[in-house]
Amino acid sequence: MRVALLGATGAVGREILNTLEARNFPASEIVPLASSRSKGSRVSFGGGEFEVSEVTADSFEGIDIAFFSAGGTASRLWAPEATRRGAVVIDNSSAWRMDPEVPLVVPEVNPGAITGNKGLIANPNCATIQAVMVLKPLHDAAGLEQFSAVTFQSVSGTGKEAVTELARNSEAFLSGDKGIASVYPHDIAFNVLPHIGGFDEGGISEEEWKMIRESRKILELPGLDVRCTAARVPVFRGHSEAVTALFKRTISPKEARRALSVAPGVCLADEPGRNLYPTARDSQGKDSVFVGRIRRDTISEKGLMMWIVSDNLLKGAALNAVQIAELLVTP
Amino acid sequence: MRVALLGATGAVGREILNTLEARNFPASEIVPLASSRSKGSRVSFGGGEFEVSEVTADSFEGIDIAFFSAGGTASRLWAPEATRRGAVVIDNSSAWRMDPEVPLVVPEVNPGAITGNKGLIANPNCATIQAVMVLKPLHDAAGLEQFSAVTFQSVSGTGKEAVTELARNSEAFLSGDKGIASVYPHDIAFNVLPHIGGFDEGGISEEEWKMIRESRKILELPGLDVRCTAARVPVFRGHSEAVTALFKRTISPKEARRALSVAPGVCLADEPGRNLYPTARDSQGKDSVFVGRIRRDTISEKGLMMWIVSDNLLKGAALNAVQIAELLVTP
Repeated sequence: MRVALLGATGAVGREILNTLEARNFPASEIVPLASSRSKGSRVSFGGGEFEVSEVTADSFEGIDIAFFSAGGTASRLWAPEATRRGAVVIDNSSAWRMDPEVPLVVPEVNPGAITGNKGLIANPNCATIQAVMVLKPLHDAAGLEQFSAVTFQSVSGTGKEAVTELARNSEAFLSGDKGIASVYPHDIAFNVLPHIGGFDEGGISEEEWKMIRESRKILELPGLDVRCTAARVPVFRGHSEAVTALFKRTISPKEARRALSVAPGVCLADEPGRNLYPTARDSQGKDSVFVGRIRRDTISEKGLMMWIVSDNLLKGAALNAVQIAELLVTP
Repeated sequence: MRVALLGATGAVGREILNTLEARNFPASEIVPLASSRSKGSRVSFGGGEFEVSEVTADSFEGIDIAFFSAGGTASRLWAPEATRRGAVVIDNSSAWRMDPEVPLVVPEVNPGAITGNKGLIANPNCATIQAVMVLKPLHDAAGLEQFSAVTFQSVSGTGKEAVTELARNSEAFLSGDKGIASVYPHDIAFNVLPHIGGFDEGGISEEEWKMIRESRKILELPGLDVRCTAARVPVFRGHSEAVTALFKRTISPKEARRALSVAPGVCLADEPGRNLYPTARDSQGKDSVFVGRIRRDTISEKGLMMWIVSDNLLKGAALNAVQIAELLVTP
């Protein structure tokens, strides 16, 4: 199994390498690729160091699986070249996610969607993955009718430069200096920005649309009512979400906990009286999607409120992509 | 006008002194009071320094207005003593807010509620004040039926020790050290805690109940449907809130902006295409409640979504309390 990785030097790229190694993915060879800017950098894998090559169409000759994690423009350019050469592309960008020909897959939620793929499978948005991981078992139990999500997203979702900016600007603030906002339009240190991706004419952000449209596609509920506010918080890693879901049938918090306790990839952390609920810091480096603060909605009898947290670089990105590859290898 | 201030050395107490001074409140004398622990500290007011006295029942002899900002226990103990001696108490704690005999007042929203007070007026919870400041003008325009709030609350709402803990733990984290959580049950640095106040048996927190119950009382809508998730974020000052409101009549974002643009104490910051929306950092030290990202709800035609930010120590606490005193002085 020859595996290519486009975007090998990025935040998600490095986590894909770690995850492939940790899960003993049956790769006979790893071909790390990047734009000309990162050509010649080195990445670690399986105890060795590999030089990163500049991506060309020929890079994909003889490749079985190609992970793409270099942004939408690179995906639009190189995915057709890779699939034409017989590789199956697992794309972490948003470029192809809403294409009706392209499966958008969370392996615990809609594994069947990969059958009939045409050489290109999309990995969903981080914030959407963790929401649907929890909503799917509840949908199976009670029939999901609508959900509202407000996200508290970490800077690592933006990339390595954003991680540096948060650290540098936090240090500046604590020393009484003024931080420089370059990755974000405002200083993210000790602040909250309700702004992830560009805004459309109606004032809805790209990240909010991803939550709405991708959750409908993954859950196979095209008419699902969804609303979202996406905000960036000064957290390095781990996205948190306040989610309210309304169902066709009444489902008690106890029933919800029971359904979630046996859901693959989901971990209950729900004893608020003992200060036990999911937090971003606790989720770092862990594979699970954590859920807690499950309670009755104070408005609708058929509603549940909850708090969902996951490491956005793992289940939100690298782990989910590697799990898709595992589905391909051992169907 | 003789003014006492119980809790003079706290985060809100100091802001009350600043606000009284900045607004030229007609005080002939300021009597700073505190528990025995803070007795003898000094506070600044009007160019002078005043020694803080330990509170006793006699402290309130001859006092016209007493600001209380020393927590619920002190309020329950001393408010009856102060009112018995003829002072009007403006209480910043949650001790008396839901007492049907006690007006709960946001001067721009329900100034009439102070008439008929029995010597005790409650200042609402910070997160609730900024929500109702924006919801009231929209209610007047379109009839509020329900709202959902998810809060991103700063640590200064907890007090001075929490501000120190966030600074110290952020420094520790950035140096690769482990911070110590003592004010909060988990490290707040670069983290989000969905936990403000204790949890009831149903898993709802005290802060969430305050949003539900206090907004109903202030807006004089006892049957209003409200849901809330309250979270603490690593921000020093300024609370942010994602609010979705449903109305009896459809109200467009444009109409909402028009109504809010003339609402006293509310400041529109709503040009997301130019990166203009309210942020916690921008709100610091400012009197207004800022609102932006006003958009149509993606679920209900009669819904609006928005982002509301205010300095929790000013309009969320000290400023609102001083405005209540101003209502008493110049009715």
